[in-house]
Amino acid sequence: MEERGNISIHTENIFPIIKKFLYSDHEIFLRELVSNAVDATQKIKRLAAVGEYKGDLGELKVKVAVNKDDRTITISDNGIGMTAEEIKKYINQIAFSGASEFVERFKDAGENKDQIIGQFGLGFYSAFMVADRVDIVTKSYQEGAEAARWTCDGSTEFAITDAQKEDRGTDVILHIAQDSDEFLETARIRNILDKYCKFLPVPVEFEGEVINNPNPIWTKQPSDLTDEDYKNFYKELYPFSEPPLFWIHLNVDYPFNLTGILYFPKIKNEFELQRNKIQLYSRQVFITDEVKDVVPEFLMLLHGIIDSPDIPLNVSRSFLQADSSVKKINTYITKKVADKLNEIFKKDRETFEKNWDDVNVFVKYGMLSDDKFYERAKDFALLQNTEGKYYTIEEYKALVQANQTNKNEQLVMLYTTDADKQHAFVEAAQNRGYDVLKLDSMIDSHFIGLLEQKLEKTTLKRVDSETVDKLIERDETKESVLSDKEKEELKGVYEQAINNKNMTVEVTPMSPDDAPVVITLPEFMRRMKDMNRTGGGGMMFMGDMPDTYNVTINANHPLNQRVLNAGESKATVARQAFDLALLSQNMLSGAALTTFVKRSFELMTKE
Amino acid sequence: MEERGNISIHTENIFPIIKKFLYSDHEIFLRELVSNAVDATQKIKRLAAVGEYKGDLGELKVKVAVNKDDRTITISDNGIGMTAEEIKKYINQIAFSGASEFVERFKDAGENKDQIIGQFGLGFYSAFMVADRVDIVTKSYQEGAEAARWTCDGSTEFAITDAQKEDRGTDVILHIAQDSDEFLETARIRNILDKYCKFLPVPVEFEGEVINNPNPIWTKQPSDLTDEDYKNFYKELYPFSEPPLFWIHLNVDYPFNLTGILYFPKIKNEFELQRNKIQLYSRQVFITDEVKDVVPEFLMLLHGIIDSPDIPLNVSRSFLQADSSVKKINTYITKKVADKLNEIFKKDRETFEKNWDDVNVFVKYGMLSDDKFYERAKDFALLQNTEGKYYTIEEYKALVQANQTNKNEQLVMLYTTDADKQHAFVEAAQNRGYDVLKLDSMIDSHFIGLLEQKLEKTTLKRVDSETVDKLIERDETKESVLSDKEKEELKGVYEQAINNKNMTVEVTPMSPDDAPVVITLPEFMRRMKDMNRTGGGGMMFMGDMPDTYNVTINANHPLNQRVLNAGESKATVARQAFDLALLSQNMLSGAALTTFVKRSFELMTKE
Repeated sequence: MEERGNISIHTENIFPIIKKFLYSDHEIFLRELVSNAVDATQKIKRLAAVGEYKGDLGELKVKVAVNKDDRTITISDNGIGMTAEEIKKYINQIAFSGASEFVERFKDAGENKDQIIGQFGLGFYSAFMVADRVDIVTKSYQEGAEAARWTCDGSTEFAITDAQKEDRGTDVILHIAQDSDEFLETARIRNILDKYCKFLPVPVEFEGEVINNPNPIWTKQPSDLTDEDYKNFYKELYPFSEPPLFWIHLNVDYPFNLTGILYFPKIKNEFELQRNKIQLYSRQVFITDEVKDVVPEFLMLLHGIIDSPDIPLNVSRSFLQADSSVKKINTYITKKVADKLNEIFKKDRETFEKNWDDVNVFVKYGMLSDDKFYERAKDFALLQNTEGKYYTIEEYKALVQANQTNKNEQLVMLYTTDADKQHAFVEAAQNRGYDVLKLDSMIDSHFIGLLEQKLEKTTLKRVDSETVDKLIERDETKESVLSDKEKEELKGVYEQAINNKNMTVEVTPMSPDDAPVVITLPEFMRRMKDMNRTGGGGMMFMGDMPDTYNVTINANHPLNQRVLNAGESKATVARQAFDLALLSQNMLSGAALTTFVKRSFELMTKE
Repeated sequence: MEERGNISIHTENIFPIIKKFLYSDHEIFLRELVSNAVDATQKIKRLAAVGEYKGDLGELKVKVAVNKDDRTITISDNGIGMTAEEIKKYINQIAFSGASEFVERFKDAGENKDQIIGQFGLGFYSAFMVADRVDIVTKSYQEGAEAARWTCDGSTEFAITDAQKEDRGTDVILHIAQDSDEFLETARIRNILDKYCKFLPVPVEFEGEVINNPNPIWTKQPSDLTDEDYKNFYKELYPFSEPPLFWIHLNVDYPFNLTGILYFPKIKNEFELQRNKIQLYSRQVFITDEVKDVVPEFLMLLHGIIDSPDIPLNVSRSFLQADSSVKKINTYITKKVADKLNEIFKKDRETFEKNWDDVNVFVKYGMLSDDKFYERAKDFALLQNTEGKYYTIEEYKALVQANQTNKNEQLVMLYTTDADKQHAFVEAAQNRGYDVLKLDSMIDSHFIGLLEQKLEKTTLKRVDSETVDKLIERDETKESVLSDKEKEELKGVYEQAINNKNMTVEVTPMSPDDAPVVITLPEFMRRMKDMNRTGGGGMMFMGDMPDTYNVTINANHPLNQRVLNAGESKATVARQAFDLALLSQNMLSGAALTTFVKRSFELMTKE
């Protein structure tokens, strides 16, 4: 047996499925119909340009009207219009006959794949997602053409009759279905128009107002635009945001088509970072604000607009990731952003520094996630010290080389993650003539690792990881005022007063100007704990390990000689000194703090 | 002119559109084909049950196999099978002919709308999203039936030939297209099966293993299940989670059909809360883990499974929100959760208290967002004090009534948002015989407002909003050791030492056991600031207002008499006392803290 046959689809059966499943979002119908209306006006313009149409073009525009009493939405244009024959041809048949052509085009990745749905007429049918009857009243631009009315109730049957219509163009009248009442609210319609039609190239009128900006600046040449233009456009896009720091005008023809403007936003704090602020357009029609995969991840925090007919729409995510034009767009945008930053850095370092606080997250994120971007950015990425001065990485190395190279010829960069909480340590380092970097954002902990990995013979140490003498190790020893026996006794007094096995006490001669007691947590230990806390590194066991701190007692501080001579109150004085050291490390709280405060008040009262 | 006509759709044109647009997620093909295979086995079982099929059923199962060399995926079942005629009828025509029936059913909201796609055969066509050729080799259960092979390359042409197949059932063989290589990876296939087919009612075999649990416990009667069963199932769903606190077995037939199990997870901290941990099934086929709209928002944090053919799938969000069965499901789940909590509270208060830390977020969130839930929950919602004891709202009112009613007959409940940071104030209140509540989670700031709104003549005050004497105002005055003149002088000394116009200094007689200096931020002021910080309340201007603190100097504390007699060092002693008060309020940091520590070391060294 062998038999051949054809899969038979009955039109009446496929229609409702398309209506219900084609778009998950019903509001799209308005985008599709308004886009069609805009296309009709563009076509008449083209015909006039080539001399095919000799009549008066008039003011080309599209109107949207809602009539709640009649339960209708009407989309009108004064575009090319259609004859009765053309309605049948275009609306009825084009609807699906384009699909084989679609497949052809789809195979050929080099071709434009834009407006996939619109191109094949399916867009019009989205009207039936919200309407139970659709009328088209239209009159062709052709001389002597008769107006015609097409009516369809969403079944496959339609009727065409004569109609009265004076002017050239098309009205699409939707009779809204019971389950779609929401679309009879003018606020809802205005909202949808605002979302999808804000930058359509022909004026769109709603309730007597033009709701769009037909000539958005990204379609213009950068040379024709002022800073003010860019700032105003930003305000138009994000009315409640602070002005942007700067922007990049994108404009490529080859090997893909892309225009747009990316803005660097002013960020107040890291928690405020907002993704999905870049809007994706295709020929001025809004498509989505989910630009993941199209824009490199580290640039998702930028704001603005990308308009490209080359980004495949409505295809699956995995396809998008593999798509070669999407990859090229990614690379292009990364390069443009790096170039722009480099340009500002070179031309106007002052502005660059002023904006660094806002920009550093993008740059560091980019350097961490994209090696090519690291190579571009390493010359303009800045380090800020606690005095608020900015240095490039090379400049900073030169600055601290002489004073901060240790006995093993390692350059030691000191940093603070919180200049306020680590104030005592920052001050001690500065008094020693060291420079301290501010690396206090969430991304900095990763950035520190990147710097150590990229820079040779360079280590970064948090300013409270050692006593100031040991931060940068030298070949020198300090004389001790106390004898070894006294040091041993002092150690015992402190150990007893502290009474905590996670505090390792050591008595060391330091400068009498240094603090009498200093508590430190070694850099390595802290990083392991941090890594564990943020879930990376797999050092799960560290989470349960107590922090082991070093308590350094300054043998040369007069207070410690006093401790040895304090008789009965030895322990109290040692404990009070230790508590003060805990305070400097922000480690005294709760009941221990209350005890300290009470003891202090008592000591003061007794004096 | 009047003309009627039919919209003509050509099969060859609609096909590729369906293939590309029907599902946004291509992996769905496997769910559809495996579900079809399961249905085929269910049908033969039914036929056997009614005596239509008298042969041996065998062990009903579905097998999935990937052959990377041949680039095929095969889905096999030993179900009902098909004759050549049936293939044509079902595969070819059912594909779309069901759609009119679909529309009928869709109109009738009372009917089952489950498996919309599967029911109308479209599911099978999803094969062409990933395959460029599909073969079906099948043999009907009917006696003497001949096996047949159907082949189709995704065009509308197909061929049917004789085939060799010994046993009853169907093999669907997908020849995977070039752009779908990913589906030839067994890891990917296992992953998809694990996602969608984990609980299908017939064993599904892949690589020699049964990958599903055909009898998940939610399909059983609660009376047939032990606690261990519920816990094991939880472990099956969330292998890395801690055991659940407790669970609710859902089981309704009318007015809608719903089964499932909701678990209360153990939460480590509020930042860990995970939404989208509830999975939605339709007759044991996984649909989605986005259950927003189906489950009340405050219960989104629960874990578990809901299985219902009554939840409309694949329809727009706005439709889902308006759907009446969805609303009923919502109400049902809310009620069941409240009933379960109430039951545990009544039966086993100890367990309830033990779990309160994990459960309180759900309960408070529910009380805040749903008035009906508030009414149910107000009798079992618990308040915890700083001693770790739990009280219902009524119990707590009774507990503190006598001691914490102020002169205006307002009941004052005291609370701390951080027992560690506010330790000195908690201790002071406790020494006065007051009870202090722990209200320290993010949701508690809203819950405090709710309590004040619902409870009559009740105010909540943070424990550090006033000095302990003023927290609960009485009609009594304390004698002062200092004369009015001395008080005035003391005030001046402190004001000069503090030198900050946002600190309002007042000298008041308090107990000599109270602290010599206390800094407080009035409740109202703090709430406004908090509201502003979290973005609510619209008190935008408060953000820029400095906190204005009250500094209360205890006229009866001996230290303050010492201040008056300290001569030259008056200011130093006052400043040191003020700094200690700042420490108790966690307000001393950075340079100010370093200065304090240094001054303390100096004072100690001098003594």
